[in-house]
Amino acid sequence: MLHYNPHLSVDCVLLGFDGEELKVLLVQRNPSDEEGEYNDMKLPGRLIFEDEELDDAASSVLLELTGIKQAYLRQFKTFGSISRTSNPRDVRWLEDAVKLKIGRLITVAYMSLIKITGRLNTLSPDYSAGWKSLLDLPQLAFDHNQIILEAQKEIQHMAQLDPTILFELLPAKFTALQLRRLYEQVYGRQLDVRNFHKKIMTMPYVVPLDEFETNVSHRAARFYKFDKKRMIKG
Amino acid sequence: MLHYNPHLSVDCVLLGFDGEELKVLLVQRNPSDEEGEYNDMKLPGRLIFEDEELDDAASSVLLELTGIKQAYLRQFKTFGSISRTSNPRDVRWLEDAVKLKIGRLITVAYMSLIKITGRLNTLSPDYSAGWKSLLDLPQLAFDHNQIILEAQKEIQHMAQLDPTILFELLPAKFTALQLRRLYEQVYGRQLDVRNFHKKIMTMPYVVPLDEFETNVSHRAARFYKFDKKRMIKG
Repeated sequence: MLHYNPHLSVDCVLLGFDGEELKVLLVQRNPSDEEGEYNDMKLPGRLIFEDEELDDAASSVLLELTGIKQAYLRQFKTFGSISRTSNPRDVRWLEDAVKLKIGRLITVAYMSLIKITGRLNTLSPDYSAGWKSLLDLPQLAFDHNQIILEAQKEIQHMAQLDPTILFELLPAKFTALQLRRLYEQVYGRQLDVRNFHKKIMTMPYVVPLDEFETNVSHRAARFYKFDKKRMIKG
Repeated sequence: MLHYNPHLSVDCVLLGFDGEELKVLLVQRNPSDEEGEYNDMKLPGRLIFEDEELDDAASSVLLELTGIKQAYLRQFKTFGSISRTSNPRDVRWLEDAVKLKIGRLITVAYMSLIKITGRLNTLSPDYSAGWKSLLDLPQLAFDHNQIILEAQKEIQHMAQLDPTILFELLPAKFTALQLRRLYEQVYGRQLDVRNFHKKIMTMPYVVPLDEFETNVSHRAARFYKFDKKRMIKG
């Protein structure tokens, strides 16, 4: 029952939508132990420095990894369970990386919604980073699967308060199918196609364009755009 | 730029409504320094123990102070700025209290909405605790004024997602005036009396009763009750 000093880190859940799937940016670690080398993935993050604000630590993780300077990072939850370091592989990897003895490790989690564009294909090669579909995540280091689940709940809340944020994930012109897929993956459930089309009609800020898909084998779908000026503020 | 170990605490913003004012539960500290004894107030909270989950630490703070076992405590934000310990009085007080050298102090903040009832007048005498109006807060220890402001923003978001939570603060029977005062203090702005009455009419879950105030010098106001079954789920 002693007072004592845990280690403190930040972790970033960077979520993006590529037009088909909601994805999270993960970095690879390639450590080895007595059973040999193993590869697995984790959220981008690191221990904070002594003279560093939490928000600044999170921004610098994002900047170093993606080159993005201006993204809005939202602190959404702190994970501090004792069981976070129950896997000795995680502890050994971190102790090797930072050359420190690690006991309890508390992490402040941030999230950001990012448009996956061409620019983001040039991720810093130092981190073997990649976008992974939320529908098909492997077992990640520490409690990072749980952190991502909580981030998903957070977007659902944020989208209820302000649906605009979901449109920040879409390209400037998008199809009804893309919008539905985004909603389905944010809310984690299948939506009825007909009802969803009716729902779009009730959104004055989703504006149908006179443009259609080209070079597609199926019937060309109409493009829509998002018009923030038509948002009705509750 | 070293990695290092900060101290970690939990602090609880316990908000209640006494029918007139939105209040926060504060505890008094009575330390002294070279300039003599001084009294000021802070949020209830403490350093976490080595083998203690964050949520459990927050629950135990609430239980020891108020005797409340079952309240829902929501972790809402972690405050970790270096400037949190910029007031030497705060640091000296804490070092005296825990017999430890304190450097950086990071706190995980929780909030809970509590009905202020008779039971809550019997607060543990160990803490010189008291309910203080949010409209008239003194300068508190550390960054606790800022933590309370952020908690207020959090209730606004929570109430937008689920207006039910505000009714948890009200007595079983309440007047329109009490409901308006609660809304005004949660949202931090004056509301027009007429418009607010119209707004109440559009809330199917606010049910007018055939009961009126008694023993009042002004015109007796009607009582209302909250009926959760009439909530329309979005």
